[in-house]
Amino acid sequence: MEADTAKLRERACEACAETWEDRAKAQTPHCKFGEDGICCKNCSMGPCRVTAKSPRGICGADAHAIAGRNYLRTIAAGTSAHSDHAREILHVLHSTSADGNYKVRDEAKLIALAREWGIPTDGRDIYELAHEVAEMGLDEFGKPFGTQRFIKRAIPERQKTWQEQGIEPRAIDREIATAMHMTHMGNTADAEALIHQGLRTALSNGWGGSMLGTEITDILFGTPTVRNTEGNLGVLEKEMVNVVVHGHDPAFSEMVVTAAEVKELQDYARGKGAKGINIVGLCCTANEVAMRHGVRMAGNFLQQENAILTGAVEMMCVDVQCIFPALAPLSECFHTKFVTSSPIARIPGSIYVEFKTETAFEQAKDLIKMAIDNYENRDASKVFIPQNKQAATVGYPCEQIIKHLDGVTNSHVDELGSYRPAVDAIKAGVLRGAVGIVGCNNPRVRPDYSHFEIMKELLKNDILIVATGCAAQVATKAGLLDREAKYLCGAGLRRVCELVNIPPILHMGACIDISRILLLVNGIARDWGVDTTQIPVVGCAPEWMSEKAVSIANYVVSTGIDVYLGIEPQVKGSSQMMELITQGTRNLTGAGYIINKDPHELVRAIIDGIEAKRAALGI
Amino acid sequence: MEADTAKLRERACEACAETWEDRAKAQTPHCKFGEDGICCKNCSMGPCRVTAKSPRGICGADAHAIAGRNYLRTIAAGTSAHSDHAREILHVLHSTSADGNYKVRDEAKLIALAREWGIPTDGRDIYELAHEVAEMGLDEFGKPFGTQRFIKRAIPERQKTWQEQGIEPRAIDREIATAMHMTHMGNTADAEALIHQGLRTALSNGWGGSMLGTEITDILFGTPTVRNTEGNLGVLEKEMVNVVVHGHDPAFSEMVVTAAEVKELQDYARGKGAKGINIVGLCCTANEVAMRHGVRMAGNFLQQENAILTGAVEMMCVDVQCIFPALAPLSECFHTKFVTSSPIARIPGSIYVEFKTETAFEQAKDLIKMAIDNYENRDASKVFIPQNKQAATVGYPCEQIIKHLDGVTNSHVDELGSYRPAVDAIKAGVLRGAVGIVGCNNPRVRPDYSHFEIMKELLKNDILIVATGCAAQVATKAGLLDREAKYLCGAGLRRVCELVNIPPILHMGACIDISRILLLVNGIARDWGVDTTQIPVVGCAPEWMSEKAVSIANYVVSTGIDVYLGIEPQVKGSSQMMELITQGTRNLTGAGYIINKDPHELVRAIIDGIEAKRAALGI
Repeated sequence: MEADTAKLRERACEACAETWEDRAKAQTPHCKFGEDGICCKNCSMGPCRVTAKSPRGICGADAHAIAGRNYLRTIAAGTSAHSDHAREILHVLHSTSADGNYKVRDEAKLIALAREWGIPTDGRDIYELAHEVAEMGLDEFGKPFGTQRFIKRAIPERQKTWQEQGIEPRAIDREIATAMHMTHMGNTADAEALIHQGLRTALSNGWGGSMLGTEITDILFGTPTVRNTEGNLGVLEKEMVNVVVHGHDPAFSEMVVTAAEVKELQDYARGKGAKGINIVGLCCTANEVAMRHGVRMAGNFLQQENAILTGAVEMMCVDVQCIFPALAPLSECFHTKFVTSSPIARIPGSIYVEFKTETAFEQAKDLIKMAIDNYENRDASKVFIPQNKQAATVGYPCEQIIKHLDGVTNSHVDELGSYRPAVDAIKAGVLRGAVGIVGCNNPRVRPDYSHFEIMKELLKNDILIVATGCAAQVATKAGLLDREAKYLCGAGLRRVCELVNIPPILHMGACIDISRILLLVNGIARDWGVDTTQIPVVGCAPEWMSEKAVSIANYVVSTGIDVYLGIEPQVKGSSQMMELITQGTRNLTGAGYIINKDPHELVRAIIDGIEAKRAALGI
Repeated sequence: MEADTAKLRERACEACAETWEDRAKAQTPHCKFGEDGICCKNCSMGPCRVTAKSPRGICGADAHAIAGRNYLRTIAAGTSAHSDHAREILHVLHSTSADGNYKVRDEAKLIALAREWGIPTDGRDIYELAHEVAEMGLDEFGKPFGTQRFIKRAIPERQKTWQEQGIEPRAIDREIATAMHMTHMGNTADAEALIHQGLRTALSNGWGGSMLGTEITDILFGTPTVRNTEGNLGVLEKEMVNVVVHGHDPAFSEMVVTAAEVKELQDYARGKGAKGINIVGLCCTANEVAMRHGVRMAGNFLQQENAILTGAVEMMCVDVQCIFPALAPLSECFHTKFVTSSPIARIPGSIYVEFKTETAFEQAKDLIKMAIDNYENRDASKVFIPQNKQAATVGYPCEQIIKHLDGVTNSHVDELGSYRPAVDAIKAGVLRGAVGIVGCNNPRVRPDYSHFEIMKELLKNDILIVATGCAAQVATKAGLLDREAKYLCGAGLRRVCELVNIPPILHMGACIDISRILLLVNGIARDWGVDTTQIPVVGCAPEWMSEKAVSIANYVVSTGIDVYLGIEPQVKGSSQMMELITQGTRNLTGAGYIINKDPHELVRAIIDGIEAKRAALGI
């Protein structure tokens, strides 16, 4: 993979284009104050930077206050990203109709959610119900009283912990606004209080915005099922019109995928000399459309420029989050049409087509036509498509995991629809435990390498992996989402994979779908009869990069699950903050961070952590 | 005043305490990247800093994207501060009852607001009505559909502009969350789109959160009326128990003021050898209690440490915003009890008494008792109270201004309750125009000096001033809130002051009350029959410091009123951002910033700006 990247970078030089590698080099060394979290820009008396000689900013804020405030703002931003994405999806649900662009594809899930929320369902029109659920979901963002509905899904032990600690999340947007208020000049300077609000804000994401995003997306576009697909840049096709969908919110990409299936457009493409239209995904949008349509995945975060560098992409359509603004000037070096679609992610130099639910399908068809028309502009001399691609089986939301576990259950003796078989396998030691590997790439470390090293080692040690986001795509590219990857596993995990007929890494979706992992862990703890803190399951983000990741890490910790990080949170300048995120949160939620930049040491720590949890349970 | 500060600083040295002057010196020079707004900390690939050699961050964000994102986050934070304060006040209104700690003091205003919002009022219990209004107000923060109710108060021209530009503010918290989402890694990199959301977010503050805060505070504690009081550190009393209330949200300070009036506590204080209990205010809390109770004002933002340095403060009670964390270690150098009261502003080293509506009055009485008990700990050798204090007339909300204008109206000919007399005076040229002077202090410039220089010059040029916040307190300290200050005015303004019986600077309240200035300008434009952009009225923040100020500046610009700034917004590293805030917004809202660090040049620009508006109107 790295050889392919090197070749693509050579082509960048020829095209006079720069890539993140060039910019990362130019930006190194980074500002130490910023890296350590002790630079404060929260008022215009500053910026202030804390040193041994000047240990307080002008207002008197010390390193702990400054690092804590920056950290809380990071969580607020990450929470806003996932949750605002969920809000958009709820508005799409609110726009559904029997003959509209958007329909309800999973009626059973809609009805189940309506019942969970106490909405009468009997004999009601499905769209009337959809609109009522959408309105109730939208209220989770701004209701003046009460806490998030989904926290009732958590096991009683967790609910009790959240209540006792005063971190039951209220309305999502309120937690964000409160976090921003607390960090405003002249407010909270107490690191502990900032961490506290961080956990609460993050919970409004994990058990609020993100969970809403996942549920409603399933209702709209169907709950994912197991599908075979392929991953890596080799999925781009030399003789087809290549359209890359990139970003996070599938409302746009779903329409693009559907538009590409229209016969007239396929004929039109053939009329223009192409063998067809090839839609591929990038970043989390790739995960969304792969799980629901088997659309192939071109790559993850740090491959976004590489896709354009192949010279074979007629169009890149983006929605929101993790879009390099660099794609605009880069596209200009090639024939690629770079299309932005959301008011949330406006990028200069792009073609802006503001996506509207009423006109979504027509807009998508217009874009596909534009991409086809652009095929003739492709410069063959600039085309280089790396051949690497791997088979992958994707699409393991909780529903599919349960279904597979049901398959190995003796239905005469055991109840169906439970995680008991998984619990039994862990108790028996056939499986030692499980790790959720999630998160981005980050130029601070060798891209994908930490993910890969950690995954390999865990599988060898009979530890099952569930993955989402860019981490899941590393597994794709490494062939670990293939059932044949069982040969890389220890004997116990291999047996489980064979018996249950699963790959050793289960692809659970996009980064917003880490809410699925919450429900999985919660379900396992429930069926086990212990608290989430006790089961040998942890989270790991070896190469995290975004503010979303910090919000995620905090809701995972709040859920009682340890989080192993390969990149340091930017609070190092405060000993108190370092203590709080690694130890202090354990007193509040029973979990915390373990941080190690060396992937081999990190995976050792994970295995030790899992074995320690097993020992504490006496298994 | 500066001599007093110098003397107090000497005492700080003796007490081994540091003050902002020491810290500002230690923090100078500031980081140039931060000052110019071109340092990005929005993901952990960075921080990235833009230079000529490396003009893009790792993701490809350029100076315009980075400065724009930082600027929008600043607006989001400022909006959250004012609006979250308003939310708290609405929850207090929701807790009111006939026999509770909090009551409705302005029933007429409550009924008027209920009617404005279409709530039936006839024959209803006032507390039932209060709770319904509170719930409706709270919905403004999170309603999934629709725009802010108060924008309907604006003149039709403004409403049309906001609609055409797509900046009608939706739910307040949603605008904040959207701003945070747009500035998340991989989203908007287009400075124009960031400015656009900045205006919208700020409007959700000015014509949303702040306006709610002001209205509901008036309903709860009474709409301010004209009162005589005094200002500056000389209001501290050598032989009394001195309690300083400091911050912004008056829910706490109202109780402290009321508790200090309890006879038992006054007797208790006398029993301890004091002549009584002296409550004084600092920062915007001072403005709140001065306007409603005549409580004297000890000083503004950069005087907060000075109050403690007098050695004569038994207790400083703070609520939220603009509280130096430095007050905690400083209090330890004296006998002062430093009490924090809000979960929003937790400060290490303070006595934390979490203020609850149900127990508010009891808590306030306990605190007063604690302050009295602390009187005997005062060290006479450490006491130095500067003698300076000035008489001031405060309390000019719109209702009082209208009342005063009614006083000069010929009720046989003209309608009452209108700004017509003011319009006529401006048209006639007796008044050349009006300036709202608002905002903080900032160590970047000589504290209070710019305010003072600008105020003097404007008065001389027959320009009436309305003031709020720390600016209003400069006017207090300079004696400009005294009716006798008319002698510093030009002949026209002096005549107006005499006729209407007002001081030449009208104290309109705290910084949240800049919403009153919006309504004043809106009312003048309405009664004049022109757009707000046309009338010779501008805003000026010569020494602004906080993120709130940036939010304010943006809602003022959105309302069509030019804003003159004496401190540069931290976007200088982007030529596009500089162009957008000074010129670009003019295409959107008809107003923009004029920035000049020299107060004498700034006031000249203001006068020229006002004269240019007059010329355009042909007056």
